[in-house]
Amino acid sequence: MFFASDNAAPCPPAIMDALVRANEGFAKSYGADAHMARLRDTIRTLFDAPEAEVHLVTTGTAANALSLALYTPPYGAVLCHRHAHIAEDECGAPEFFTAGAKLQLVDGVDGKISADGLIAALEGADRSVHAVQPSCLSLTNVSEAGTVYTPAEIAALAKLAKSHGLGVHLDGARFANALATTGATPADMTWRAGVDVLSLGGTKNGLMAAEAVVLFNPAKSWELELRRKRAGHLTSKMRYVAAQMEAWFEGGRWLDMAAHANAMAARLAAGLHAIEGAELLYPVDANMLFARLPDAAHARAKAAGAQYHEMGDGTCRLVCAWCTTDAHVDALLATFRG
Amino acid sequence: MFFASDNAAPCPPAIMDALVRANEGFAKSYGADAHMARLRDTIRTLFDAPEAEVHLVTTGTAANALSLALYTPPYGAVLCHRHAHIAEDECGAPEFFTAGAKLQLVDGVDGKISADGLIAALEGADRSVHAVQPSCLSLTNVSEAGTVYTPAEIAALAKLAKSHGLGVHLDGARFANALATTGATPADMTWRAGVDVLSLGGTKNGLMAAEAVVLFNPAKSWELELRRKRAGHLTSKMRYVAAQMEAWFEGGRWLDMAAHANAMAARLAAGLHAIEGAELLYPVDANMLFARLPDAAHARAKAAGAQYHEMGDGTCRLVCAWCTTDAHVDALLATFRG
Amino acid sequence: MFFASDNAAPCPPAIMDALVRANEGFAKSYGADAHMARLRDTIRTLFDAPEAEVHLVTTGTAANALSLALYTPPYGAVLCHRHAHIAEDECGAPEFFTAGAKLQLVDGVDGKISADGLIAALEGADRSVHAVQPSCLSLTNVSEAGTVYTPAEIAALAKLAKSHGLGVHLDGARFANALATTGATPADMTWRAGVDVLSLGGTKNGLMAAEAVVLFNPAKSWELELRRKRAGHLTSKMRYVAAQMEAWFEGGRWLDMAAHANAMAARLAAGLHAIEGAELLYPVDANMLFARLPDAAHARAKAAGAQYHEMGDGTCRLVCAWCTTDAHVDALLATFRG
Amino acid sequence: MFFASDNAAPCPPAIMDALVRANEGFAKSYGADAHMARLRDTIRTLFDAPEAEVHLVTTGTAANALSLALYTPPYGAVLCHRHAHIAEDECGAPEFFTAGAKLQLVDGVDGKISADGLIAALEGADRSVHAVQPSCLSLTNVSEAGTVYTPAEIAALAKLAKSHGLGVHLDGARFANALATTGATPADMTWRAGVDVLSLGGTKNGLMAAEAVVLFNPAKSWELELRRKRAGHLTSKMRYVAAQMEAWFEGGRWLDMAAHANAMAARLAAGLHAIEGAELLYPVDANMLFARLPDAAHARAKAAGAQYHEMGDGTCRLVCAWCTTDAHVDALLATFRG
Repeated sequence: MFFASDNAAPCPPAIMDALVRANEGFAKSYGADAHMARLRDTIRTLFDAPEAEVHLVTTGTAANALSLALYTPPYGAVLCHRHAHIAEDECGAPEFFTAGAKLQLVDGVDGKISADGLIAALEGADRSVHAVQPSCLSLTNVSEAGTVYTPAEIAALAKLAKSHGLGVHLDGARFANALATTGATPADMTWRAGVDVLSLGGTKNGLMAAEAVVLFNPAKSWELELRRKRAGHLTSKMRYVAAQMEAWFEGGRWLDMAAHANAMAARLAAGLHAIEGAELLYPVDANMLFARLPDAAHARAKAAGAQYHEMGDGTCRLVCAWCTTDAHVDALLATFRG
Repeated sequence: MFFASDNAAPCPPAIMDALVRANEGFAKSYGADAHMARLRDTIRTLFDAPEAEVHLVTTGTAANALSLALYTPPYGAVLCHRHAHIAEDECGAPEFFTAGAKLQLVDGVDGKISADGLIAALEGADRSVHAVQPSCLSLTNVSEAGTVYTPAEIAALAKLAKSHGLGVHLDGARFANALATTGATPADMTWRAGVDVLSLGGTKNGLMAAEAVVLFNPAKSWELELRRKRAGHLTSKMRYVAAQMEAWFEGGRWLDMAAHANAMAARLAAGLHAIEGAELLYPVDANMLFARLPDAAHARAKAAGAQYHEMGDGTCRLVCAWCTTDAHVDALLATFRG
Repeated sequence: MFFASDNAAPCPPAIMDALVRANEGFAKSYGADAHMARLRDTIRTLFDAPEAEVHLVTTGTAANALSLALYTPPYGAVLCHRHAHIAEDECGAPEFFTAGAKLQLVDGVDGKISADGLIAALEGADRSVHAVQPSCLSLTNVSEAGTVYTPAEIAALAKLAKSHGLGVHLDGARFANALATTGATPADMTWRAGVDVLSLGGTKNGLMAAEAVVLFNPAKSWELELRRKRAGHLTSKMRYVAAQMEAWFEGGRWLDMAAHANAMAARLAAGLHAIEGAELLYPVDANMLFARLPDAAHARAKAAGAQYHEMGDGTCRLVCAWCTTDAHVDALLATFRG
Repeated sequence: MFFASDNAAPCPPAIMDALVRANEGFAKSYGADAHMARLRDTIRTLFDAPEAEVHLVTTGTAANALSLALYTPPYGAVLCHRHAHIAEDECGAPEFFTAGAKLQLVDGVDGKISADGLIAALEGADRSVHAVQPSCLSLTNVSEAGTVYTPAEIAALAKLAKSHGLGVHLDGARFANALATTGATPADMTWRAGVDVLSLGGTKNGLMAAEAVVLFNPAKSWELELRRKRAGHLTSKMRYVAAQMEAWFEGGRWLDMAAHANAMAARLAAGLHAIEGAELLYPVDANMLFARLPDAAHARAKAAGAQYHEMGDGTCRLVCAWCTTDAHVDALLATFRG
């Protein structure tokens, strides 16, 4: 009963097999290998973006912070949701990579920036020399509350941002889950909605350690490469990172895995709904949910060995992974029900 | 005939097996897993350093730059060899991680800092407020010229550095090769010689992507952890990084692999010695050598598909890996001989 | 009728005379002159702090950002009021000087951090590796709302901060005004209350450009000096900065000027109180006040040439300077009254 | 007998008078005053550059570091002379302001970058992702050796730099002295020769503290303003900085003062030439010279109270100021002669 995080899950056998297959003989380092070349093509095709540039890193924090640095000068500000991962969970990585820009926190219910919140932030910004200048909007899909933006919602926010001269970043640590929820195409969820750069996360959806920065504006590519190297994120044996992601895309595996995780969260939500005294804090759009439960329910679950984050006042976060099963979910629900 | 770099080699089967074995069920993320705990103990034992702290990253640049940041404030200087990797091959990572410290380049033949060079740098340093303050000595073993410092040489340089208040970092991207050359213990090559922090490299010696920062002063551990997270180098599924390194140490595998690579370089050096017009630029202490060869020799080798770095004026770098064979070496020599 | 800012006022003749007197012959540069030596002694005596170190800069932003950098590592956070000058008016200088630390905004009415707000920030801080670590408390006295902390209030907040391991900075851009309001001694307002470093502002109280960083922990002095030089804030002809401040302290001139400016604000507040439809937004403790006035009042004042900041919704900021006169105040009130 | 530095000299009366005149009533802060407006026009006229933007700071280090930051990204390199002020005397300010770029040191005799040295640096630069990218050339006129580049020399170096895509910065801490030496116009020495941004120094030539950043590419102006504020270099009472410089340009005063200082250095050089055992290290082009003298000569001079920098091996630096007199020079020479 492990619901603490999708980043604690193992990799599916197909990924391990791909690693073993990639482990043949010498291969050029730093991304000049055949896996990387094929992966780049695959992503371009999947996103219907033949000009896009793709660069790999091994953590979501790196993907996010590097992306933001491309669109935010030191005297700039990133607009993001008050509870965004970049604001709360990266120990200041955006500030480090941008050389000291600010994050400007925007409000919005259910973990999603609202148009009103964004308008207030953009129009209320002090554009004098005494203040940092709003430079980049960062959205997260799936959001930190487990909710999902539709392509139309992203497009509306991106349009506002662009009308004020901002770049648009999408933190897609759980991008596949958002696609699975909405049925949107990768292109509709990103560049067609105005996204300039995507952190495309694989690690939370079954990969060992692989995240892609997808640049829809290829003019930023060389800068990204230099910043990546300088940050120590240019993996020498890149073939192993690329190979993971190749296998992940193969036959739509990434979406199947995400859809499964989402389905497990839906099952869990349905079960919680039926529990007296249990309450869901946000809509359950993807593979992660937040609930309030009676103390006794938590006590039973913990006693039974369930692992998940408690956040005070009876609230908790429950995350389903590609390998979470009906049995896992039902067992957890059973402990909660008592 | 691939002699371009040891970072283009595959991993030995034992490493892949370890990864597959580590891929069982859920495991706590961010280093709270059992592999990491065991690896920490292993390293403490190997280094006879029960208090040492161990933190993993996935690139040598990250290990180096994070280590340097612990000992070098923004208004400080790192003293390193004129041709050190940190000076020439990391796109300014030390400057990034230290928030703008300087590298002060020190001279010395055969890629090694000489005592005289270090004394000149230390005593010649401007200690007024107009200059950055020497803060950290960074040595590289195996050096960028393929030569090896003995523990006594390291101790002499570290003593000089410490008498001027500097910290001491050892870039051990090829640490195992240096141990294999000298037969020194890990402890003698590091903390007993005055080293405060070691970048212990696994990637160039058969691992997929695994480097350890070994802190002999555990008081710096929390700072290292925060800087690592902030730099995007806290891998979530740490078990896979730790598992690689566990298997690497198992039964002395790391030293066996390094010794083999060193032996291949020695074989190559002996062969080059016998070639009319070939010249070795530096002593061949480990698994990497630099040579000057007639143009015709290069032309034949390249025509035959040999891969290695040419550096102008007939010079080249040739690196042997854990999986380089006698046959590879002899084939390369044959093309050179014509 | 200039009420836009105290930094738009001229200098009193005594300051200009001091500059002219300092302009005799050659003097050692970078602070090795006699004016600086005397000023250091004067400040030590005034603060009853014989060990304090004093370093001059020429802007308040520099004094603040340098001070914060001494107590806040890049992976740290500065706790400050939501509307602190360092948060809203310095274009990210604290982030720049700290190499990317965060400002964590604390609530509190009337521009002052409340004990409850501080406790919430300290106890609610995520102390895991995923978050920046609270490192420094920055208070502003006079606050950005024109209110004043008593020494006891500062001591209570500093005690809380120190119990969590934070350093304490006081932004005293209008420090003299706060002393004039409370009658407190410099020592009681600073180190006896737990302040580690003070930005002692002269420019807003009659100087041309002179601010002192007063370090009550002299162990930080050399670091401050190096950071100051590196930031381009080590003025070569320091005698002119020191001479301004010498003349300012002479015979209690700094406190007299501050008391006068405070009295002018009190007169203005009293006059506003008597105006139908006028409203003061905060207690008027020092030389700066915030008011809401009918549109017609603003229109009359502006038409008559009055200069001050309007902040929307009929609100405005009115600042009195050392040279503001009864006549200036009465004239402004007359236009408001119509 | 003060020859330690031109930054230890007082200001001429005209400057003090201008300050006193500027000290009338309230004036808008942060550069919105009438002095700044007039000064901007004056500089545009003097440089025959009606589009140039002018921003003031109070130290040369700030002017240089801010200028470099406009043309050098964090992953870039500034090419400068091995002994440039930015390399040796600013405690890493360029690294701080650029967020960690490197200075790449270029050789050249007599303190001036040679075309060969620059070509070697440009063509030898590693343009791979593993190295920082040459981004800006910084020249110093008057050089740190007291020599002067002609406009033609600057143009030749700037052309080389631009052919490789670099920006061109001129550190003109002693710009007026270089103009006085060559008789060149400000335009010929700067933008007509390919200079993009000039640090125009006033402090070493008689001002209290005033340096102008002159941007010949006005598109960089807003970025400069934000960086200046963020660095704490936006002086609030800017009128006093602008007024100094206004008075300096008045009637060609800046050039007269510089010409006088140059003449004093020439007189000193001529006198040294006649001293047995004295030797000039570089051509004496402006107001600063470097000499080697017998120990006895130094001993006599020091005993007589002469102040100047000794640099080891009998060498010293002697700087003449706008207020150095024939009598000062002759007195120093007399002590040297014994």
